[in-house]
Amino acid sequence: MKRSYKDLIKGLITNDRVCLSKLISSIESDPSSIFKIIDSVKRIPNKVYTIGVTGPPGAGKSTLTNQIIKKFRSMDLKIGVIAIDPSSPFTGGAVLGDRVRMQEHSLDTSVFIRSVGSRGDLGGLSSSTSSMIKLFDIFGMDIVIIETVGVGQTELDIIKISDSVLVTLVPEAGDGIQAMKAGLMEIGDIFIVNKADRGGAEKLAREIDYMVSLKHDSSSRKNKVLTTQAENDIGVDELIQEVLDFRAHEESSGALVKKRNRRKISELNTMVEKRLRNELEKTKETATFKELIDKLENGLLEPEILVQNVIDLIKKSN
Amino acid sequence: MKRSYKDLIKGLITNDRVCLSKLISSIESDPSSIFKIIDSVKRIPNKVYTIGVTGPPGAGKSTLTNQIIKKFRSMDLKIGVIAIDPSSPFTGGAVLGDRVRMQEHSLDTSVFIRSVGSRGDLGGLSSSTSSMIKLFDIFGMDIVIIETVGVGQTELDIIKISDSVLVTLVPEAGDGIQAMKAGLMEIGDIFIVNKADRGGAEKLAREIDYMVSLKHDSSSRKNKVLTTQAENDIGVDELIQEVLDFRAHEESSGALVKKRNRRKISELNTMVEKRLRNELEKTKETATFKELIDKLENGLLEPEILVQNVIDLIKKSN
Repeated sequence: MKRSYKDLIKGLITNDRVCLSKLISSIESDPSSIFKIIDSVKRIPNKVYTIGVTGPPGAGKSTLTNQIIKKFRSMDLKIGVIAIDPSSPFTGGAVLGDRVRMQEHSLDTSVFIRSVGSRGDLGGLSSSTSSMIKLFDIFGMDIVIIETVGVGQTELDIIKISDSVLVTLVPEAGDGIQAMKAGLMEIGDIFIVNKADRGGAEKLAREIDYMVSLKHDSSSRKNKVLTTQAENDIGVDELIQEVLDFRAHEESSGALVKKRNRRKISELNTMVEKRLRNELEKTKETATFKELIDKLENGLLEPEILVQNVIDLIKKSN
Repeated sequence: MKRSYKDLIKGLITNDRVCLSKLISSIESDPSSIFKIIDSVKRIPNKVYTIGVTGPPGAGKSTLTNQIIKKFRSMDLKIGVIAIDPSSPFTGGAVLGDRVRMQEHSLDTSVFIRSVGSRGDLGGLSSSTSSMIKLFDIFGMDIVIIETVGVGQTELDIIKISDSVLVTLVPEAGDGIQAMKAGLMEIGDIFIVNKADRGGAEKLAREIDYMVSLKHDSSSRKNKVLTTQAENDIGVDELIQEVLDFRAHEESSGALVKKRNRRKISELNTMVEKRLRNELEKTKETATFKELIDKLENGLLEPEILVQNVIDLIKKSN
C-alpha cells in the first residue's frame, strides 16, 4: 500500500526511517516535492550541523568519514550521510573491505546513509542535496556529513552547502598545487593530510599551512591543517575536536548564522528564478501568447513592443 | 545643442547620417534605448539583408569585405558595416594599407561603417549588434555586413544574426579541421577559400566540400565552396552571384522567413528573461521584500514558503 504524503511527513517527524527513505526518494524523482514537505511542516528545526568532506580520489575520504561517524556515535549523536563521491563505498564504487566496514553502521539506527549518483544531471544535485539535509534536520539528525570528490564546479557548489568543509589530501607530488587549482583552498575550513605515514606528509602540511596563511587576515580565525592516519585512528580525535572548536567559534562570532543566512537568500533567489522560468513556460502555452507570436511572425509587431505584453501576461497568470 | 530622441529618430527616418551615428552610440551606452526607438517608429521596414563575414584571423576578411562593398555599391545598394573583429581595419587594428583602402568608402555617403569593440563585455554584444541592424534597416540600408573573427561562442552567436554567413578560410595546414572545431562548419552558408593563389587552396576547398556533403541532406540546397583572391578581385563576382542566388533560394523556399522568425522569437525570449530579472531586482528594493528577508534570516519562514510571496510581489509590481 502506498502511503500518503501526509503520513510520510508524520512518520518523518516521529523518526520513522522508512518514511525518511521514501521522502528522499521522492525528492530525487521530483525535486519540487520539497515545497509540499516544507509547506506541511512549516518550520525546520535548524538543529543539524553539516560537515562536508571533500578531496581528490584516493585521499581516503571514505575511511575518514567512517571514523568521524564512529567518533560522533560515541558522543551519542545521530548522523546522516549523503555520499556523492562515485568512488565512495557508500555509492558502491569501492573495494570490499571498505564496504564491510560501512555495514556496521547500516545496523545502527542512528546512522542513515544515502548514496546519490553524480553521473547523470549534476544541475539539480546541489538543490536536492540541500533538500535532503532539510529532511535529515526534520528527522532529528544532529550531524549531516556530505562526502564528494572535489574535482568539478558542481561538486564544489554542493560542498559549499556545508557549515564546515574538510579538505582531505594525501602526501603525493603536486597535491598542494592540485588543491589550489581545484579551488579546494578557497572552500576549506579544515585541511587534513591523510595517510600521514607516507613520506612527504609534513612537507605537504607545511605547504598548505603557508597557503592558508596567505589568505588569512587578522580579523578571522586561521584555518587549521591537521595530519591523520584515518585507517589506524591516528589524529581523528584531534580532527573531531577541531570541528567542534570551529563550530563553537563560528557560533559565538555569529559567522555561522551569517553563512546560513547567505545560503538561504541564495536558495530563495534560485527558487524564484526557477519559478519565473516556469511561469514563462506556462504563459507560452496560452492562446494569447500564441496570438502574439502570430503577429510577430507576420511582422505586425516587433519583439521590443511585444515584450511588455508577455510580461503582462505572466503577471496576470495564476 | 543636444538633440532630443524624437528629433534623432525623425532624422534617422529621413536619412540623416549624424542621427544614425548618434543613435548607434546611444545603443552602445544604453542598450535599452532600442525600446524607446522601436516604440517610436512602431514598425521596422524589414528590408535589409544581413551578411555575416567570419573566419580565423588573417583569412583576409577585411579585404574581402572591402571588395564586397565595392560590388554592391556598383549595384547602387546602400550598405552598413558592423565590424567586431579586433584585427579589422574598421576597428582600427590593421596595417596602414588596409586603412587607406577603407577610406574611399568613408567618403561615400551610401556606406556607413561602425566599429564595435569586442574586448570588453561580450555579453550584450549580440543584442546590441541586432539593435544596430534595426537602425540600419530604419535608415534605409539594403545590405548590412557584420564582420567578426570566428573564434569564440559569442562571435558565433553574433554572426548567427545574419541572413547568410560567409566563412572565410585560407589554405594553411590544418585549417579544415580548425574550421570544424570552431563551429564554423555548422554556421556557414557559403565557404570561401581566400588567398587561393597559395598552395593547398584546391585541396582545402575539396576538404570543405566533403564536410559540407556530409551534413547536407537532400531536402535542402547544398552549401557552395568558392575560391577567391580578394586582393586581386578574382572570384569576388562569383561570390556576389552566389550570395544573391542563396538569398533568392531562401526567399522563394520560405527558409529566410523561417530563419528570421526563429530569430525574432529567440530575441523576444531573451528580452522577456532579462525583463523578469529586472523585475526581480526591483522587487528586492521594496520594503515588503526586505521584511520577508528579515523573517527568513530570523528563521520564521523557510525559502520554500517565501518563494511564492516573492513571485506575488513581482506580479503585483508595475
